[in-house]
Formats: sequence, C-alpha cells, structure tokens
Amino acid sequence: MISSRWRIPVLPVLLFSVVARGADVSEYAVIRTDRSDGRYVSTRGVVQEMLRGEKPSLAFRPDFTHEAFVNWQDSVRRKLREVLAFPPDERRPSPKLLSREPRNGYSIEKWEFYPNRFAAVPFLMLVPDGVSPANPAPAVLCIPGTDRSKENLAGEPELHEAFARPHFEEKNHMALEYVRAGMIAVAVDNPGMAETSDLDRITGQRYQCSGDVNTFAHNLLNLGWSYMGYAAHQDNELLKWIRTLPFVNPRKIATSGHSLGAWIAGYLAVLNPDVAAAVMNQNIYDWREAARVRTKPDAKGCRPRIYGVFFFIPGLYRYFDHPDIQAAIAPRPALYCEGLPERDLTGIYQPAYSVAGAPENLTVVPFDKYREPESRFSGSVPEGLSDDEYWKANSNDGPQHYFKAAVAVPWLKQVLQGIH
Amino acid sequence: MISSRWRIPVLPVLLFSVVARGADVSEYAVIRTDRSDGRYVSTRGVVQEMLRGEKPSLAFRPDFTHEAFVNWQDSVRRKLREVLAFPPDERRPSPKLLSREPRNGYSIEKWEFYPNRFAAVPFLMLVPDGVSPANPAPAVLCIPGTDRSKENLAGEPELHEAFARPHFEEKNHMALEYVRAGMIAVAVDNPGMAETSDLDRITGQRYQCSGDVNTFAHNLLNLGWSYMGYAAHQDNELLKWIRTLPFVNPRKIATSGHSLGAWIAGYLAVLNPDVAAAVMNQNIYDWREAARVRTKPDAKGCRPRIYGVFFFIPGLYRYFDHPDIQAAIAPRPALYCEGLPERDLTGIYQPAYSVAGAPENLTVVPFDKYREPESRFSGSVPEGLSDDEYWKANSNDGPQHYFKAAVAVPWLKQVLQGIH
Repeated sequence: MISSRWRIPVLPVLLFSVVARGADVSEYAVIRTDRSDGRYVSTRGVVQEMLRGEKPSLAFRPDFTHEAFVNWQDSVRRKLREVLAFPPDERRPSPKLLSREPRNGYSIEKWEFYPNRFAAVPFLMLVPDGVSPANPAPAVLCIPGTDRSKENLAGEPELHEAFARPHFEEKNHMALEYVRAGMIAVAVDNPGMAETSDLDRITGQRYQCSGDVNTFAHNLLNLGWSYMGYAAHQDNELLKWIRTLPFVNPRKIATSGHSLGAWIAGYLAVLNPDVAAAVMNQNIYDWREAARVRTKPDAKGCRPRIYGVFFFIPGLYRYFDHPDIQAAIAPRPALYCEGLPERDLTGIYQPAYSVAGAPENLTVVPFDKYREPESRFSGSVPEGLSDDEYWKANSNDGPQHYFKAAVAVPWLKQVLQGIH
Repeated sequence: MISSRWRIPVLPVLLFSVVARGADVSEYAVIRTDRSDGRYVSTRGVVQEMLRGEKPSLAFRPDFTHEAFVNWQDSVRRKLREVLAFPPDERRPSPKLLSREPRNGYSIEKWEFYPNRFAAVPFLMLVPDGVSPANPAPAVLCIPGTDRSKENLAGEPELHEAFARPHFEEKNHMALEYVRAGMIAVAVDNPGMAETSDLDRITGQRYQCSGDVNTFAHNLLNLGWSYMGYAAHQDNELLKWIRTLPFVNPRKIATSGHSLGAWIAGYLAVLNPDVAAAVMNQNIYDWREAARVRTKPDAKGCRPRIYGVFFFIPGLYRYFDHPDIQAAIAPRPALYCEGLPERDLTGIYQPAYSVAGAPENLTVVPFDKYREPESRFSGSVPEGLSDDEYWKANSNDGPQHYFKAAVAVPWLKQVLQGIH
C-alpha cells in the first residue's frame, strides 16, 4: 500500500547502529521541512514553526515612547501575575518567630509564615546589630538556586546532610554577605527543597532521585498552577510581610536571587513597584529562543532536552519572554552579575532603561571569560545549536555559576544608600 | 542556631544506606503532618492537601435531576474545550488523497489533512467494498495507544522498524477489525509518534530515548497549549471532515481509542453531541485521585512517579476529572472494554446513565481477571498505595492491556445497526 514517497526503506540493521558509527545527523540540526507548502508531518516541526511565529503580544518594542513604555510595563505586571496564577488574597496568620540567636555583628532569627491555606514555610532573617525602628535598615529578600538551602545562603550548617551542595557552597552565602554589609537579609527555601522537601531527609536522596518535585509540580499544573507560580507567590507573600516590619526602611527593599532564584527575584521586582532594586545572579535568557535554537542532535541523534518540569509556566510564551519581563524593572536599579546575551542587552535592556530615563541604573557584569567585548557574541542567534553553543552565544559560563558576592554586595549597598 | 525542634540529627552514615538495608518507610505511605495546625512544611504535603480539597467545580453529582444533568453536560462540554485550549476555527485546505490500494474486502486510502497552520497530518481510511453515497456506511475514528502507529491499527507494515511495537502487535489491529465488520475506519497517529515523529526514523530510537515528545509537549505548555489538547484538537478536526463524507452515514459516527487514544475518544464524544457511540479500551481512572493516593514509598523511599509530561492538562483538576468527563457521554452508547473502577461505576457512570434515561447504553466489560464481582474492589480507595495496589483497586490488569476486538467490534456493530 501507500505510494513510495511515503515509504521509508527499512534497513536490515538498526539505524541506531549506523548513527552510533558516525552517520552525519548534523543536516538535521535546524528543523526544516522539504514540503513545498512549508508544512510539517513531524509534530516537532509544527511546534518549531509555532516558536518561530509571531512575537509574544507583550514583547518590548525599542520604539516605545515613555508613555507607551509605562503603559506596557503596567500590562506586563498584570499579565505576569496572571500567568503565575496567584490565588486571590486572603487573610492568613501572621508569621511566627521560632528562635533568635546572636551571631558576630548580627542576629539570626528563624520564622515561619503561611503563604497559603496549607503551608507553613520556614525562613531565616539575619538582622544587623543596632537596627531598630528608630534606626531602620534596608532589607533584601534572598532566593537560592534550585535546590540550595536557606541555611546555605545564611552560612549556617545544613539541617540535614542530604541538603548539602558542596560545590561552591562557600560562594553562595548570599544572605550572610548582605547582613555583614549592614542589610537585613531574609532567606527562604525554594518549594519542595531542603527543609520543605518531602522524604529527602528520610531517604538521604536528593529530590532529583525521588522525582518528588517533578511530581508535585505536575500536580500543580493540573490544578491550574505551576511550580514557578507557587514559588513566586510564596516569595511575594514574604515580601509583603518584610514591608510591614518597623525596623525595615520601606523605600530600601530589594530582591536578590541566584540561578532559579534570580528569575523569581526579577518577577518580584516587576510585580512590586516598591521594590527599590534587584540582583539577578543568572545569565537571563529568552526561554522561547532557547526552545527554538537548541535543536542540534548529539552523536546519538538526540536533540538537547528541555529543562525540568518545574520551569513550566503555562502560557508564558504567548505574552512575553524573560528579557521583556526583566526590562519592565526599569528605571529601577538592576544588576546582572553573570552577564546577559549581548543581543538582549542592546536590543531590549538598554533601550528600556533609556526610554525609562535612567540608563545609569542598569548594571551588567559579565563572567570573567566574557569580560572583553570582542569575546561576546552579538547579532541574532541562529537555530541548530547544541547546549554548549547556545550558552556561548549568551556569554554564559556555566562552570563559574555561583553568587558573585564581590560584585553584588557593594553594588546593592551603594544603590540603597543612594535612595532617600 | 535554631531551636532543637528544627534540627534534624545528622547521622554519621548516609541515611540512604539505612533505607536500603530495610528501614521502614511505610509509615510515610500516607502523607501526613504532625503539626497541630494541620499545615505542612513539606511542599509536597501542601499540594497533597490541595488534592484532598474541595471537589472539582463541575464534578458529577448523583442527585442531578434530568434538567440539571443536561445543563451540567453542556458546561462540561464547554469547559473541556477550554482546558484543551482549542484554537479558534480557521479556514484550512481540504484533506488530500495520496494513494488508494485494494485489499481483501476493502480498500485502504492514505490521506493527509491540515488541522492547523503548520501541520500536514497523514492518516489512513479503510473503506469496505461496496460503500458509496447511495450505500453509506457507519464510520469510526480509531486512535492508537501512546506510541503505536496508524499502520498498526490498520494491520499494515510499519513505515519504519523504529515504529514497530511487537508486544500485542496483532491484538491492536483496531481499524482492520472494524472495516472487516463493515465500518469505515479512519486511523491516525498520535502527535509526534510514528510517521509524525521527528528523528526516530533517522536514529532508530524510540521517542522515549530522545525525549523529543516531552520537549515539544513542554513547549506547547509554555505556548498555552498541551499535548493532549493538541492531540484532541487534531482528532476533532479529522472528525469534522469524516462528517462531510457523502458515503458516511452521519448518524453513525463513532470514536474508538486504545490506551492514550481512549481518553481522547472520550473527549471527542463529549465535545461532539453527534458522535453516536464511543469505545474506550482503557480502564479510565480519576487523575486527581491517582495523584492523591499513589504515595507509598518503594524500598528506596521513592514515592510512585507521575506519568509522562504529555498527560498534563493545565487546570483540568479544577473543573472535573475523567469519570465526570466520561459520564457526560450519557445517554449515548459507551463501551469500556477494560473495566472501570467499581466506585466510579456505581457512583458516577450508572447514576449518569440513569438520570439521562438510558442505563442500557452503558456497557462495561472487565478484564478476565476481574470478571467475578467479588474480585473487584469496591468502596473508596485509601491513600498510601503503590502503583500496583492502585491498579488493583481499579480492577485494572496492566499486563493484559490490548485492544479487546472480540468485545468492541460486535458491540459497536450492533449499536450502530440499532440507530436509524
């Protein structure tokens, strides 16, 4: 049956072995169709065309007037809250102090708060000595990388050895570094990680082994929410409480995040116009672009895989992508301590800060490897890249991915000192 | 730091090894909190409480009057279309015939159709000899299990050996069996599978190896769609076309699905009131219930994992679950060839068919293993089950999961003959 154009010859050996012996799959790096009508039989090809399609409806436009920018910023704020699917506000118990202990130059408090009906979320607050309602201090909400703990941020012992991440452990003392610089630092776990994990402390296995975070992230999606939405909502509730503290200077509240936490730190700055500054210790990239260009098959013929299920944000690509979201922080001071893709910097971030009237408030510090401008890829990024090629095109140096305290802490201290 | 109630002792050996040596993790089978306020520190616990929470807003209610049932059915139809995120209707090219070949007693046609802007989706149509506009026949849309091909349904050679699934290959000739019984049978691949796969025919690897379906399913979510929504939309477009064929009796159109395809066959029957009958060769279960009760850790301390990413339907749990969706097929004839959970049968399906006025139109044929009523679990299912325990509570016999032609084909033939 079926005309020959549809019949693919069945080779007498598994084609896999041909590929493994070195057949060239590079011709498939860019997803193309050979049909004259441009359509795809491969569903992957169909989705690729969707990714190539029209820009998100709320993409930043370099030709914005100041008024158009301000209106756009407001739309991004509202739509971001919508795709993160924040539940309606409701009355909840006040956060509760669990313990307080002195440290050298500051005290560390353990609290818990109640961001939704069922959760009790522990967090740490590091308060510099001498801070009081009469002598308020700036405050910074610190959000860790994916599965690093709040204890790691605070430079405290882990609550369980299963939560320890020895690689760059000392580099990631974000909250400790801020409190030493005179800021109140609040540190929280990402949902399902460290103290908020399920059986990790029983099994000694990391969440990656148990698949537990993926499982509840999947359930959240079916419930109409998402991991990122849950995390951002929780952290946003914490931010609301920080704002009420009499010893916090409400004009000097910042967000700071490493890795996964950096995306959330940016969301919170967009959602809350009173956040004075934000530190993103992450080479922020465009998720839709990454999905579109990371398509080069490896030696086995497998294209790069998508990232973890906890990164899903249903509907996000329709409206904007991460450079757009970040640009909506303007004109407030923002620091990117691990660089940015050059094309996004010149095409989105710099025009946004210009039209917002504060180009001096955008600070981008590349990885050492990309310190020289000529080492950074500029121009638009082609399709058909491997993971490594894509990171290179973004001036992203994965092996050096840790909190850049030496850059972030003096920057944030100075920025907040400049606010009156 | 931190009061002792928060400090978990760090053992001198990895706790994993304790678990591996046989420590008892069964006490964690049911997710509980020991807090007096009922809240959870574990995010998994929080999500568990959400799953335990109020019923979906459009859950079937056994106390429905006939009028309330009809209104509810209409709401389910509209909301199902919404969560499957069908795009707006648009004009598209007509399906195109690619080839036609005679077989013994029928002809097989290869077509392609264009369910969205970028796709050309091949399908097969098996037409009994003698069918014509003057002598129209019933038609059945056949949807395969996850990664089985339309060629498998039609009993034709696979287009590539990478698409072959030898286990139960002969049992799954769904379309071939229907055409032999005098029905027009239309068979289509699930998105990204078999002929619609990406590099499987190049690499010889199944999609599970390449992760390709997961990758584009993830992209679809970020685009505001889903794999299941994409699949259901595609198949719904095909159904629209079948309806227009002059040699099809439009009062005798059915849907029939195996495994993954069975869920979709049910969706199509709900969405299209003119679908006369539906065959679900799958023990349909309640996804939210499955998420809630499958929590027993294995010997390594890992709870059962969630199913593949292509099963996500954002928001579904909020409105209804699968027994509710299926019940909205009533009063039209529906066949469940691999049984149903007894609690759903007596609590939802039977009351739905009763209130709809056609209890005789519900046919449930259990797996042989559960043929005797006393072998089937009744009552509500407790939390804390393993996968095996959950399937048993559903009267589901996984190893015997194949298309039950001997049940389905005579049933559908008789049902459609009875329609005038």
